Amino acid sequence: MDQKKVYVAKRPPMGWNSWDCYGASVNEEILLGNAGYMAENLKEFGWKYVVCDIQWYEPTADSHEYHPFVELEMDQYSRLMPAVNRFPSAAGGKGFGPIARMIHEMGLKFGIHILRGIPRQAVHRNSKILGTDRTAKEIASTASICMWNTDMYGVDASKEGAQEYYDSLFELYAQWGVDFVKVDDICRHVKEPFYEKEMIMMARAIERSGRPIVLSLSPGPANIEKAHQYERFANMWRITDDFWDDWKLLKAMFERCEVWQRHTGEGNWPDCDMIPLNVLGWGWGTGKDKKRGWTSKFTKDEARTMITLWSIFRSPLMLGTDLPQLDDFSLSLITNDEILAMNKNPYQAFMSSDSSSDNVVIWTNDCPDDLEYYECYFNVSEEVQTVKLNITIGSDDNIRDLWEHKDLGASTAFELAPHACRAFKIRVTK
Amino acid sequence: MDQKKVYVAKRPPMGWNSWDCYGASVNEEILLGNAGYMAENLKEFGWKYVVCDIQWYEPTADSHEYHPFVELEMDQYSRLMPAVNRFPSAAGGKGFGPIARMIHEMGLKFGIHILRGIPRQAVHRNSKILGTDRTAKEIASTASICMWNTDMYGVDASKEGAQEYYDSLFELYAQWGVDFVKVDDICRHVKEPFYEKEMIMMARAIERSGRPIVLSLSPGPANIEKAHQYERFANMWRITDDFWDDWKLLKAMFERCEVWQRHTGEGNWPDCDMIPLNVLGWGWGTGKDKKRGWTSKFTKDEARTMITLWSIFRSPLMLGTDLPQLDDFSLSLITNDEILAMNKNPYQAFMSSDSSSDNVVIWTNDCPDDLEYYECYFNVSEEVQTVKLNITIGSDDNIRDLWEHKDLGASTAFELAPHACRAFKIRVTK
Amino acid sequence: MDQKKVYVAKRPPMGWNSWDCYGASVNEEILLGNAGYMAENLKEFGWKYVVCDIQWYEPTADSHEYHPFVELEMDQYSRLMPAVNRFPSAAGGKGFGPIARMIHEMGLKFGIHILRGIPRQAVHRNSKILGTDRTAKEIASTASICMWNTDMYGVDASKEGAQEYYDSLFELYAQWGVDFVKVDDICRHVKEPFYEKEMIMMARAIERSGRPIVLSLSPGPANIEKAHQYERFANMWRITDDFWDDWKLLKAMFERCEVWQRHTGEGNWPDCDMIPLNVLGWGWGTGKDKKRGWTSKFTKDEARTMITLWSIFRSPLMLGTDLPQLDDFSLSLITNDEILAMNKNPYQAFMSSDSSSDNVVIWTNDCPDDLEYYECYFNVSEEVQTVKLNITIGSDDNIRDLWEHKDLGASTAFELAPHACRAFKIRVTK
Amino acid sequence: MDQKKVYVAKRPPMGWNSWDCYGASVNEEILLGNAGYMAENLKEFGWKYVVCDIQWYEPTADSHEYHPFVELEMDQYSRLMPAVNRFPSAAGGKGFGPIARMIHEMGLKFGIHILRGIPRQAVHRNSKILGTDRTAKEIASTASICMWNTDMYGVDASKEGAQEYYDSLFELYAQWGVDFVKVDDICRHVKEPFYEKEMIMMARAIERSGRPIVLSLSPGPANIEKAHQYERFANMWRITDDFWDDWKLLKAMFERCEVWQRHTGEGNWPDCDMIPLNVLGWGWGTGKDKKRGWTSKFTKDEARTMITLWSIFRSPLMLGTDLPQLDDFSLSLITNDEILAMNKNPYQAFMSSDSSSDNVVIWTNDCPDDLEYYECYFNVSEEVQTVKLNITIGSDDNIRDLWEHKDLGASTAFELAPHACRAFKIRVTK
Repeated sequence: MDQKKVYVAKRPPMGWNSWDCYGASVNEEILLGNAGYMAENLKEFGWKYVVCDIQWYEPTADSHEYHPFVELEMDQYSRLMPAVNRFPSAAGGKGFGPIARMIHEMGLKFGIHILRGIPRQAVHRNSKILGTDRTAKEIASTASICMWNTDMYGVDASKEGAQEYYDSLFELYAQWGVDFVKVDDICRHVKEPFYEKEMIMMARAIERSGRPIVLSLSPGPANIEKAHQYERFANMWRITDDFWDDWKLLKAMFERCEVWQRHTGEGNWPDCDMIPLNVLGWGWGTGKDKKRGWTSKFTKDEARTMITLWSIFRSPLMLGTDLPQLDDFSLSLITNDEILAMNKNPYQAFMSSDSSSDNVVIWTNDCPDDLEYYECYFNVSEEVQTVKLNITIGSDDNIRDLWEHKDLGASTAFELAPHACRAFKIRVTK
Repeated sequence: MDQKKVYVAKRPPMGWNSWDCYGASVNEEILLGNAGYMAENLKEFGWKYVVCDIQWYEPTADSHEYHPFVELEMDQYSRLMPAVNRFPSAAGGKGFGPIARMIHEMGLKFGIHILRGIPRQAVHRNSKILGTDRTAKEIASTASICMWNTDMYGVDASKEGAQEYYDSLFELYAQWGVDFVKVDDICRHVKEPFYEKEMIMMARAIERSGRPIVLSLSPGPANIEKAHQYERFANMWRITDDFWDDWKLLKAMFERCEVWQRHTGEGNWPDCDMIPLNVLGWGWGTGKDKKRGWTSKFTKDEARTMITLWSIFRSPLMLGTDLPQLDDFSLSLITNDEILAMNKNPYQAFMSSDSSSDNVVIWTNDCPDDLEYYECYFNVSEEVQTVKLNITIGSDDNIRDLWEHKDLGASTAFELAPHACRAFKIRVTK
Repeated sequence: MDQKKVYVAKRPPMGWNSWDCYGASVNEEILLGNAGYMAENLKEFGWKYVVCDIQWYEPTADSHEYHPFVELEMDQYSRLMPAVNRFPSAAGGKGFGPIARMIHEMGLKFGIHILRGIPRQAVHRNSKILGTDRTAKEIASTASICMWNTDMYGVDASKEGAQEYYDSLFELYAQWGVDFVKVDDICRHVKEPFYEKEMIMMARAIERSGRPIVLSLSPGPANIEKAHQYERFANMWRITDDFWDDWKLLKAMFERCEVWQRHTGEGNWPDCDMIPLNVLGWGWGTGKDKKRGWTSKFTKDEARTMITLWSIFRSPLMLGTDLPQLDDFSLSLITNDEILAMNKNPYQAFMSSDSSSDNVVIWTNDCPDDLEYYECYFNVSEEVQTVKLNITIGSDDNIRDLWEHKDLGASTAFELAPHACRAFKIRVTK
Repeated sequence: MDQKKVYVAKRPPMGWNSWDCYGASVNEEILLGNAGYMAENLKEFGWKYVVCDIQWYEPTADSHEYHPFVELEMDQYSRLMPAVNRFPSAAGGKGFGPIARMIHEMGLKFGIHILRGIPRQAVHRNSKILGTDRTAKEIASTASICMWNTDMYGVDASKEGAQEYYDSLFELYAQWGVDFVKVDDICRHVKEPFYEKEMIMMARAIERSGRPIVLSLSPGPANIEKAHQYERFANMWRITDDFWDDWKLLKAMFERCEVWQRHTGEGNWPDCDMIPLNVLGWGWGTGKDKKRGWTSKFTKDEARTMITLWSIFRSPLMLGTDLPQLDDFSLSLITNDEILAMNKNPYQAFMSSDSSSDNVVIWTNDCPDDLEYYECYFNVSEEVQTVKLNITIGSDDNIRDLWEHKDLGASTAFELAPHACRAFKIRVTK
């Protein structure tokens, strides 16, 4: 029958990603520092992936900006390698192997970011490709570049040697012990194409590598018309452009979740993007004042709304922050096991109000026996809303408030502040 | 929990629709003639719906064209009624009740077509609505018309009396004994909006009517971003604009089926539109030469490709033709029980080749135990293609050719003419 | 040769329009009150058109909102007539004749607003049309309505009787003594079509009427791809959607003026829309508190920027306000003869900076002898900008500040506050 | 005042371009052969530009296809130079100087083609730029490539050194004696941006070069919203994508000419693209059968329609063919002085029928005294059309048939075959 992805993530992946706080300036110390914090404080709640985001192969990267046309660390087979000045353990051609091992020893998983394609410097030098006589120049796509970074050319799937190139990449990542690859510049469908054939080549390369690597696609918005292809070949894919600490973006996410609501489940995790928490942009500065940063602009209500929506929708949960600096409130958001249980529950959720543009948006999840399910109420308007639960409570029934960790009595009406939410677990007896 | 559609069609509906052959000129005699043929010759294969298409309320309708701003048959509550000159049994306010009864007595089901909205003549006369003090003028949408017909204004869901109007319609249809309502001018999303809220009002009206009426939406292309709403409230919805006997349209259907492939299943039947067979356009003429008509322009290969795709994709199967005039070849297409079994099988099918734009497009269906499944090969190119089945056949395995009604031997390669297809049922032992 | 418009406005029309202050509730008293003020205070500066905006035929109109599907005042030939309760002098079928005469006696010109098309009530009653046997039903377009008002259907130019209908309208307006017709719902090209053929029918009807009537088209944005057709058949056409007292809209006007810069001149007046001044929305209220209103939200700098841009671009100048209530500052803006002289000058202006998105946008006008021209500087950014005139001043040259009414000395550099402008007339000796 | 282009072509440029017949394989012999033919046979009719199209700097170019990422001939300052194997007189760094001199000596003008931007090989080698310390890497645009050729990166106007780069290019071309530069990959506005700022840099570089070089922009369709900028900075710009010998493209040109009709005149020559005549694609072959070619697929009527439309619209006339191989009919088309006189006449033409989608499209030109003007009738339908001239002929008036070279008598009605045209010069006495 059909070829499908070989690794299927049972639950939405949970972890940390370096971008929101460190941009392209992340280094070995930062990676291991965050991994250490996760192992000690978060692992028990299910958090496990530590992901090194973009440009680990760029020796001079020092902010969130990219240096155009700069020389990159590359092996003889056109494959990018970690910059040793930023990742000292990579010295001697060992790549990310040592870091992966250290993170595995903490009981965690290790992920890296790559950009779709082959380095432009390999093409203009016409470098070799492992496993084929074809060269970089011969497999590069003539009209496929990333619009915001000059590192790569796309790879043309119709050329001999193209699949071999991707095979050689994932073979290397498997050797290093990589568990998760976030591929960038691949799945936006606004103004740019979805690079479907490069995704398929990578999925095949993962299969051939023999290692269960999560394939995560970025940036969005992914094209719902191609949902079935994402579902066949990848484990998670972004459903919006980059998400940040801005209410407008959070509000817009409700509509995107509505669109993708029937596409979640084993191995299919439409991705709301990283969760910007607390300390952000720490490594984003340029020039002298390199260590700029800011604190998330979300109010507490908005932060809870974000966590609640990501959880009931069952988005992957990837933290964007510096974990060691987390404050108590932020920590409480991501260690609430009753909320996280929604994210881990096996049933699909859906918008049960009529429209994402209503004042109060309601999400519920499927419940085969109609006995126990979640229901979340979000006030996406600018005014206080009075909400009445659509439930008749019998004496044996229970409504559990997941943020407050308490059972509710008979009263099923409440006020909801603008941008705030309530999350309930409902148990009914028939 | 959530309100969902109350009637869920277990299998894709199968039947006949008057439009392709009779346009707006269908009448009682034609309806009953086709019903009689179906009862005698097709019922045993699963065909059962007899659907009267557009403008049964227009006394002067005599072709496939509409007469603008013409007087329509209407009751005192702004509800359109069958034109008695065309449907004599409707006399005395009995509406479609007598026809529905006659069709039910043949062991079949009866369906009608309506246009979304309220008659413009009701609005400009400000007629009453049953069950409310509000009047036609007060519930009409001010900027919502059908782009190709002048009968109706849309209904504004935010107005008091709007739901009551739709309730009054479906209450009447339930009284008549209608089993299937095809709502037109509602779900196209190209240039025109999807009238989501009118769909929801109709779904609620069906629920209140207490009768299990199939809700069928037209025309397409439906918007895949709203798939979840179609799935909550309707049973079938068109995925393209009108389909006719033209290879370009048939070829384009492969891409549309690809897009909708993961949205089929109990109660969810993305609809490839009527199957134009044999005699077409019989009642389409205007003026003197009113009885024009033509024979389907599809070759035999193309006709088989159409039936095969509709079947494996599990589209509803609605015949567009004059049943009593069917020739032997056409009849053989719709009475092949091995092919129809694909349509009735419970598992979702998907495109298993890489792309709808490949020369040979392959469709397979899910198969929980990997032991028995369908595989169809379509040559959508203009050249002969050599195809090799992607299967190793053991001595206990079997490949059944569904069009030829025979088991294949060891050979799993074949040539496929342009526009032709092969359909197999594969049984493997593990 | 070619048929062209017969009336060619030599200069951009200047006048007052009732909409911005009175919405659809304007009446005879308001019209004559504003005309009286104009005759006494503004006429000498070139202001002359008094335009009665939308729905003068709707007896119950009392705000800026429209009553859907309401009964309209109409003659036996499907032509709308002034509602006598609002325009008492129209009694006895005299229409706008008496008001036109009164305004002419003040030395001013009179204009009315119409919506493209034929009244829906005429179509559904199938009323007559003057000068043809065809009826309203036969010339109405089946799929052409206004998206924001229910009064009319479009007229289908391919139907016999269509031209006669428009001829009968403009014959009536000519009899009344109308000098200016603002046609609405005709020239927007975003989401809706430009109704090119109805424009051509109206231009021909004006020609046949024998009266030099200004044809003004609304709303915008007009389609620059059809500029040549506007130029052949109309005198002015809107280049944006409705303009109001909002900096964002004012800033966006710079880009629209850039696009249309080479299309101004005799008879061709791309229209920036009414100038909202001082007292606005006086008749916009609904229900009890009908007399609501507000004061323009523009700062003084912004108001000057608006007047300056409209003037140098040579937009028509139509005041949106209640003239008798004008305050001194607003009055000074529209009675500055040095500024208005830019609007009346015969040479085309153009954006002479590189781009509308620069911080400081510069507009200059053509100057055949390079000896005397205008130059306006607009700070469209949010910061103070330092500007240096690109001129070497000789001892015989002069730079005149048109807002300050004074000659500048040697200094040609200045600071410009955000949203502010400077307007100069430059005279150089060669 | 304003900076404008310094060279203003008084009449639409007329000449020959190597692309349609030779693709990227043109060489010195071909250039001079065509120049010789032009000097001898066409010069007297106004033909004068000999233009060497794309990739004269690519030593291995041998067809109409481009070799991706190939090594280009380049000087030390990142400037491309003619490949000496194809243009032997360029040896010793003399560039196109010798060829320009030879063509000038024939009494003709010389033009070259360039692609917007800086060679990618210069960027990846970080080559120098003449007249600045900045290097190729520092001025290249990070996300601006040509979609169909891998030679160049765009140049970022906001970077120091960018203007100097373009200055150094045009200084070199002026030294060579180039009279005409066709810049490619710059003015299409469908899917790709119009590279407005690179156009402005080039216009400034031409000004600084001191040589009157025609600036011609390609490909189209140019964006009518930016017409004023083309008019300020360039002399001609393409209004469609590539034009070839295909009736569909010719028919579509009527609509494009309609759109651009009011934008022709001194220095402003919207460009209908090369005129494909007779022998085409002679140098387009690849591999062994390199010398393929074909004869224009236009019928004689269509060829006349093309020449007539280009002439009355006043498009530049650039021949796409191998001049020495011209047949008699083709030669007669481009040496008809009465037809060419329309192209050279000083008055703007316009579509005088109502619409480009009418069966017969009529073009007329402005005529200040209404005494002498052109009128062309084009049958763009698939049926014969009967046409009646809209003229009353007096005894002193004259209608001249420009293709037939004869005066017409009293009859002003005629039949027009599908795709055919008639061109008249009309003289009337008042």
